[in-house]
Amino acid sequence: MEIRKIAEAAKKVSYKLTSISTDVKNRTLLKSAELIDAKRDIIKTENEKDLKAAEEKGLSRAMIDRLLLNEKRIKGMINVLHDVAKMEDPVGSVIKMWKRPNGIKIGKMRVPLGVVGIIYESRPNVTVEAASLCIKSSNAIILKGGKEAINSNRILVNILKEAAESEGFPPEAIQFVDTTDRSVVKEMVQLDQFIDVIIPRGGEGLIRFVAENSRIPVIKHYKGVCHVFVDKFADLEKAWNICFNAKVQRPGVCNAMETMLVHSEIADGFMPEMIDRFKKAGVELRGCKRARAYDPEYIKEATEEDWYTEYLDLILAVRIVDSLEEAIEHINTYGSHHSDAIVTENYTNGMKFLNDVDSAAVYINASTRFTDGNVFGLGAEMGISTDKIHVRGPMGLEDLTIPKYIIFGDGQIRE
Amino acid sequence: MEIRKIAEAAKKVSYKLTSISTDVKNRTLLKSAELIDAKRDIIKTENEKDLKAAEEKGLSRAMIDRLLLNEKRIKGMINVLHDVAKMEDPVGSVIKMWKRPNGIKIGKMRVPLGVVGIIYESRPNVTVEAASLCIKSSNAIILKGGKEAINSNRILVNILKEAAESEGFPPEAIQFVDTTDRSVVKEMVQLDQFIDVIIPRGGEGLIRFVAENSRIPVIKHYKGVCHVFVDKFADLEKAWNICFNAKVQRPGVCNAMETMLVHSEIADGFMPEMIDRFKKAGVELRGCKRARAYDPEYIKEATEEDWYTEYLDLILAVRIVDSLEEAIEHINTYGSHHSDAIVTENYTNGMKFLNDVDSAAVYINASTRFTDGNVFGLGAEMGISTDKIHVRGPMGLEDLTIPKYIIFGDGQIRE
Repeated sequence: MEIRKIAEAAKKVSYKLTSISTDVKNRTLLKSAELIDAKRDIIKTENEKDLKAAEEKGLSRAMIDRLLLNEKRIKGMINVLHDVAKMEDPVGSVIKMWKRPNGIKIGKMRVPLGVVGIIYESRPNVTVEAASLCIKSSNAIILKGGKEAINSNRILVNILKEAAESEGFPPEAIQFVDTTDRSVVKEMVQLDQFIDVIIPRGGEGLIRFVAENSRIPVIKHYKGVCHVFVDKFADLEKAWNICFNAKVQRPGVCNAMETMLVHSEIADGFMPEMIDRFKKAGVELRGCKRARAYDPEYIKEATEEDWYTEYLDLILAVRIVDSLEEAIEHINTYGSHHSDAIVTENYTNGMKFLNDVDSAAVYINASTRFTDGNVFGLGAEMGISTDKIHVRGPMGLEDLTIPKYIIFGDGQIRE
Repeated sequence: MEIRKIAEAAKKVSYKLTSISTDVKNRTLLKSAELIDAKRDIIKTENEKDLKAAEEKGLSRAMIDRLLLNEKRIKGMINVLHDVAKMEDPVGSVIKMWKRPNGIKIGKMRVPLGVVGIIYESRPNVTVEAASLCIKSSNAIILKGGKEAINSNRILVNILKEAAESEGFPPEAIQFVDTTDRSVVKEMVQLDQFIDVIIPRGGEGLIRFVAENSRIPVIKHYKGVCHVFVDKFADLEKAWNICFNAKVQRPGVCNAMETMLVHSEIADGFMPEMIDRFKKAGVELRGCKRARAYDPEYIKEATEEDWYTEYLDLILAVRIVDSLEEAIEHINTYGSHHSDAIVTENYTNGMKFLNDVDSAAVYINASTRFTDGNVFGLGAEMGISTDKIHVRGPMGLEDLTIPKYIIFGDGQIRE
């Protein structure tokens, strides 16, 4: 296993993928689904090896849960493959074309990125999600999964390759880094002659390591420190529901609310009932001085650090602000530019928030929990980008392509 | 001068720029043009300091020429400012919007990237071009120019800031790194908490240094090893004209042809006349064995290195190939994915070339020399990206923005 050879092989085959038909790609996806369905016993056997090793190593419950491939998750992978097969093939679509005075026609045509390197941690279903999107978008993929999931990942990759082989999609376009040696990551992110983009998915440590060491462009999926701002013109019922949903419905994910900002002029009407609802759901609150005044015993004191923190848990920071501008400044300063919402009935305030909050997804009167490729209608996603170039927010199929210029002439030369 | 403080100030002001009106931005550009026009004597005086220092240091003719701000180039800067003022403001345009089953409306709205760091070498006019595009796209800019141009750059930045101040555009959005100490670059590219994207413009050494050291996403503008492939179905007259134009019209630029590929079945008809034309223009030819056979005395032997080389000079590598596929493989292997052309009357071959050549701009029957933001109709450009993410080819105004998701709800929460 030499990462350089893997990357070189991926690059070489990547040039062939633009001429693979949509039909072959779809058949490869459906065949993969069929094989996963048929081979679920082998998948479970391999997965059990990983689970057993994880237990022996004393990994956390959460970690072991992420490793698990049960019936529901196997069904999930099969569904993803069917969904991606149904999605429109973005490759080759011409998004615009115009004519210049000298008669040349210039167009922008979507093409694959080339070779996508994905470096991820424990969840083995990412193997199938990422590979299916790359197959459909005619990208070669290099999969570097977590060492805890090595057996599960290997069997899934073998199934994908088998499907590729049987349907005429080049199996070398699906490359698996079959090692538990983490040092390979450092080497991998240097291979800019072969790999076109690196997508790290995992904890902040991994992402930071990749960003600091990579020569290859990286699309980062950092943390989500998401806010809901309850404006003074908020409808109280909407505000209670949205804040409760954004915090409580699934606290362990990146689009859950971590800080609630409340306009001082609505706080008296809003806070008591909100505190009551959070109390019943077992949410720990950490507030600024003015927020704490609404229930000094229940609400702990927030430190400066709290405003930056992604709890991923039933903990919420709360701050009272005196204006829309203060709320926006708080979000742009302490947030992670992921997903932020305002609750307001005031048109001008809503539009100003939408405009000035520098986040991948900005909401008026809806829960931040909607930031997700599937929920947005993009289908499966490679992750949620917190970067400012190429793509912000859910990274779908289209974001695995990039327009190149195509020019039709009839002999034009430059004067 | 502390780069950290500069970057921090740029970040802080960047959040204010989304609410600056198009009118204020345009007036700032026009005022800058007016001031450059009025202050041309001071500009020339400052420029002469740089020219004198360059001569004393014994810099090359080419280098000194790039430094020069003469009447023509001053006029050029004024024109760019007028052109950018005329261009449509991309900020705030909603490129699509759709409704989901639960009633939320999701749109993609163009917003500025935030803070753009540009690291460039000798040409002081880049200061005005880059700043004008950032002003119009509501980005804060940090300008780190070459040390040879420090006096010219400083006066130009002062003029831009004066115009900004007078028209109500925040002058802190135009930051100038006023130092000749090159080590600041290394520090600058680490400041990922303040700078959103780095654009290096200059020699390969600078670009490689930035790519290797940056924690911030980099949009690279590498070399142009461009090809013209003369297919066996080429119209000979078109082929001679296009190849001649692509090599000779301006050899020192990145979109000039560096390697000519000729199909073996047309070589007998094509080569003698082509060699004759190149000979008259003083072009040095370096060929493969079969190419050399057409004029062994004139055509030197090409080494493996030649196929990778950007000569930027009246030198051309020539190779005879036996098929379209061989030509495509040569281009994808040795080229720099910049601009490549096929000359052919055959529809299928033209379309295959367009599809399979992995370059930012792919041409049928036109000179590679057209790859340029202005010529493509995009207006002024920040450079020509040879990267595979965010933008390929000329980087115009729109590419200094990125869509964020905006979501309109009426109280929706996630089930």
